[in-house]
Amino acid sequence: MINNKAKLNFDIILVEPKIGGNIGAIARLCQNFNVNKLVLVAPQIDHNNDEARQRAKHSHYYLENAEIWESLESIRDTYSFLIGTSAKAGRNYNVLRQPSYPWELHEMLGVTEGKIGLVFGREDRGLSNEELRNCDFLVNIPVPAKFKVMNISHAVAVVLYEIWKLIFQKEVKLTEEKSSNSKEREILFDTFKEIVEALPYEEHRKPIVFHSFTTMINRSFSTSEEIHSLIGIFKTIKQNCSEKIEE
Amino acid sequence: MINNKAKLNFDIILVEPKIGGNIGAIARLCQNFNVNKLVLVAPQIDHNNDEARQRAKHSHYYLENAEIWESLESIRDTYSFLIGTSAKAGRNYNVLRQPSYPWELHEMLGVTEGKIGLVFGREDRGLSNEELRNCDFLVNIPVPAKFKVMNISHAVAVVLYEIWKLIFQKEVKLTEEKSSNSKEREILFDTFKEIVEALPYEEHRKPIVFHSFTTMINRSFSTSEEIHSLIGIFKTIKQNCSEKIEE
Repeated sequence: MINNKAKLNFDIILVEPKIGGNIGAIARLCQNFNVNKLVLVAPQIDHNNDEARQRAKHSHYYLENAEIWESLESIRDTYSFLIGTSAKAGRNYNVLRQPSYPWELHEMLGVTEGKIGLVFGREDRGLSNEELRNCDFLVNIPVPAKFKVMNISHAVAVVLYEIWKLIFQKEVKLTEEKSSNSKEREILFDTFKEIVEALPYEEHRKPIVFHSFTTMINRSFSTSEEIHSLIGIFKTIKQNCSEKIEE
Repeated sequence: MINNKAKLNFDIILVEPKIGGNIGAIARLCQNFNVNKLVLVAPQIDHNNDEARQRAKHSHYYLENAEIWESLESIRDTYSFLIGTSAKAGRNYNVLRQPSYPWELHEMLGVTEGKIGLVFGREDRGLSNEELRNCDFLVNIPVPAKFKVMNISHAVAVVLYEIWKLIFQKEVKLTEEKSSNSKEREILFDTFKEIVEALPYEEHRKPIVFHSFTTMINRSFSTSEEIHSLIGIFKTIKQNCSEKIEE
């Protein structure tokens, strides 16, 4: 199924975090998503306090082995790419803040083997313009509501999920249960159509019925196995019923 | 660009939550992502306690207006679709737990205007099999690490983000047509089951066929009209075939 050993080479970098619970929650995410390490720039609190440890669950490793630095600038050169995150939306608002979207990330990351740092700003004020200038580009999670500021650990969750998705989707295609293809579905649709055609049913309703059936099946993200199990039963319906009807 | 006024009609439903901080964090997400309301099934704690209110930030509205119910079953009929979530991965693992992936959700949701409930289980034990049976289908967030269990609010964040992405990425036109509800689908499923039961077909394959059919239909976010057009044809199949088979 999904390859647990796949590993992207990236760190989570938190600038001046001040809430232990957030740091702990992010440590847990680091473990969920195989992050390399947690890096803290000028933390405003003991990052391994009770609140952090409690929220980290089984991920104390990331707290105990967190790297601490004085400024973002001081670690700039250890990364191939520093990706900043911002709650400020709008591509045109400010040149510095023209962000990419999370769903663009995995395509970008797919082309690099370099070490990547994902930078998240202060809980209350985000990243300063100077810190943003140290980032290679910005990512913004678009949020529909007026109250746009997500909790920092939620932003980390969405970005990590989006990065990993590329790997999941590829591996899912390779190894998980096979999705059905259009040829398999055609067999099902043809069989269903033959049954419907043979039935005593209002003729003008038949195309509607057929359309409903095909549309719903096409929308259902069916697997090969599911389609074949329906083909089996519909062929049986056809054999046992259509002939009888036509008699 | 992004349509801030777009509104999908869905509730977040938490089954037996027991940590106020999680409920508060989820209330904040409800506001970030314009969720209709927060529904709590048999909460194990005062959902509006200090911890919850502190974590909810500016989103006390969702805590103060949370609906409380005794069981998932008791609210089943108020939703067009109940979508369960599970940390258990794998489409083959268990018939009940064959999940969809979050990235499949937004395409499915694009075709319904029905009321949707997103159901998240207990922090420690998730959803019971009985509760899963009340859901129309399951979504699983694939996580690369061995320690797969995300914090519940992180799971909510990812699912909400993924649903909204559709609206962010393109102008979505929700269908004007009425979503089907579980009672209408039950009629279709019962009719289909009666047909299958009456057929000369390997007995051990019949439950698999039935499961494939119901799963695919539930995943397809069908409209009332689509379901009724299938009910019509399947009743005709039943009348014209089953009797003949049994003769």
